[in-house]
Amino acid sequence: MAEELSIFMKEYKEVLESELSAVIERLDAPETLKKSMNYSLQAGGKRIRPVLLFAALASLGKDPKLGLEAAAALEMIHTYSLIHDDLPSMDDDDLRRGQPTNHKVFGEAAAILAGDALLTYAFQVIVQSPHYSSEQKVTLVEWLAQAAGPEGMVGGQMSDMEGEGKELTLEELEYIHKNKTGRLLTYGVMAGALLAGANEEQLAHFKNYAFHVGIAFQIQDDILDVEGSEEKIGKRIGSDTAKEKSTYPALLTMEGAKEALNKHADAALTALQYTKADPALLSALVELIVTRDR
Amino acid sequence: MAEELSIFMKEYKEVLESELSAVIERLDAPETLKKSMNYSLQAGGKRIRPVLLFAALASLGKDPKLGLEAAAALEMIHTYSLIHDDLPSMDDDDLRRGQPTNHKVFGEAAAILAGDALLTYAFQVIVQSPHYSSEQKVTLVEWLAQAAGPEGMVGGQMSDMEGEGKELTLEELEYIHKNKTGRLLTYGVMAGALLAGANEEQLAHFKNYAFHVGIAFQIQDDILDVEGSEEKIGKRIGSDTAKEKSTYPALLTMEGAKEALNKHADAALTALQYTKADPALLSALVELIVTRDR
Repeated sequence: MAEELSIFMKEYKEVLESELSAVIERLDAPETLKKSMNYSLQAGGKRIRPVLLFAALASLGKDPKLGLEAAAALEMIHTYSLIHDDLPSMDDDDLRRGQPTNHKVFGEAAAILAGDALLTYAFQVIVQSPHYSSEQKVTLVEWLAQAAGPEGMVGGQMSDMEGEGKELTLEELEYIHKNKTGRLLTYGVMAGALLAGANEEQLAHFKNYAFHVGIAFQIQDDILDVEGSEEKIGKRIGSDTAKEKSTYPALLTMEGAKEALNKHADAALTALQYTKADPALLSALVELIVTRDR
Repeated sequence: MAEELSIFMKEYKEVLESELSAVIERLDAPETLKKSMNYSLQAGGKRIRPVLLFAALASLGKDPKLGLEAAAALEMIHTYSLIHDDLPSMDDDDLRRGQPTNHKVFGEAAAILAGDALLTYAFQVIVQSPHYSSEQKVTLVEWLAQAAGPEGMVGGQMSDMEGEGKELTLEELEYIHKNKTGRLLTYGVMAGALLAGANEEQLAHFKNYAFHVGIAFQIQDDILDVEGSEEKIGKRIGSDTAKEKSTYPALLTMEGAKEALNKHADAALTALQYTKADPALLSALVELIVTRDR
């Protein structure tokens, strides 16, 4: 199973990355802007969000490439959020995946604009797709805006900032992560299922699957910030503690965090069964998220 | 004519502002985020972009309120661009329309997030409208993203930054302003005409009208930066010169700039005739833009 997933991920990472190159290439925009957008888009990573989208399509027997524009839009939104998060007035990070952050290379003003451009262009790429119906485009734009905007990721980011230096309850911590990280993962799964033609009931189970995957993802992130290898995750270990951020291990102890991680992984697998989709790739993805070391 | 426009503007400024309050009010998002979004949305101004949208609808005999969501989205995008433009790493402005800028009140990180939230939410408001067909929503999202993103406003902003301290040709200056300012004005006119059911030929003439209005708008902006009243425009006079920005008066002399202003105003009025729409409001708007003192 893990091998099937690993082949799938390698294939669709490449498919995605060449789509991302193509959408930037065809832009009629100033060269510096295209360069700074492209720099962060091509900075690597496992592309876990688009992979969830492609895997959801495959799990329902559809060609994953049907999700190309929806996946490119998703990765553009994720990338813009990293560029803005890294800014001096936000997390002030110099490195991202071991490479200089966007503002370190292009300057702060250009980094802000590159983020704004990626965010805006994501919606354009969806509505300009030659493959989706108008109804599908409208739903994709709505879900992506809800996932990324004030009711999703940006809202979670604001709560996260406001929570620094405070001791949060488990409920508050889950609210932050559900929005800051979980919503974009959920969009990936849901967009794939939508484009594959899933019915309302299946969509509800896919949503439930994605919710638990999102929480598991964040718990493992927090665990890696304590136990991970600096070299592998490409940033400083202990940075959450340094920023006085509430984390799952701090709130639940390390043992409790690992227990919660397994509980959410199991809940994701159960929800997956209810979708009646082929579980091969999506269950291997849960395994990967739970055991990843970077 | 001017009186009819003045009554129309007063009425639809209020309609727009209460719609903007309502769309923020109903957001399920952190209070600080809603406050900072709302602060800049309610900072006043003539709402010239939404007014163009409402006036285009009226010129074709339709109820301007049909354009409410498309206009709210437009003003949210315009507002986000002001918030990000004012940031320390961009134009570093402390005042906007005589009030402290967003980052002066809420801090830089919250201002970046408020801008990101407004930009994202704009698309959500369009696709969640109960009044538009899926096809209309797709077209509105496409036009707005093209107008606001790397191929429009953000691209123009990047070129503008790169042009600082350099002497630009008239062509380069027009490219910047066509994108930085003109494209959002054009979206306003085009969205109104689309929702009013204009045909392809009419849309082309409305686009031409909007193009000339956009250039005229920017020329008058440059003129006001030299000849305007600091109190009225709510920012420092001569700030373009201080930032070594190319301007129309610098490039064409003040007399030449005023000549160009009149030329573009006339071209806008000619295009307006070809649309076969009722020209009352849209021609008075040209007059207003050309003679405004703030």
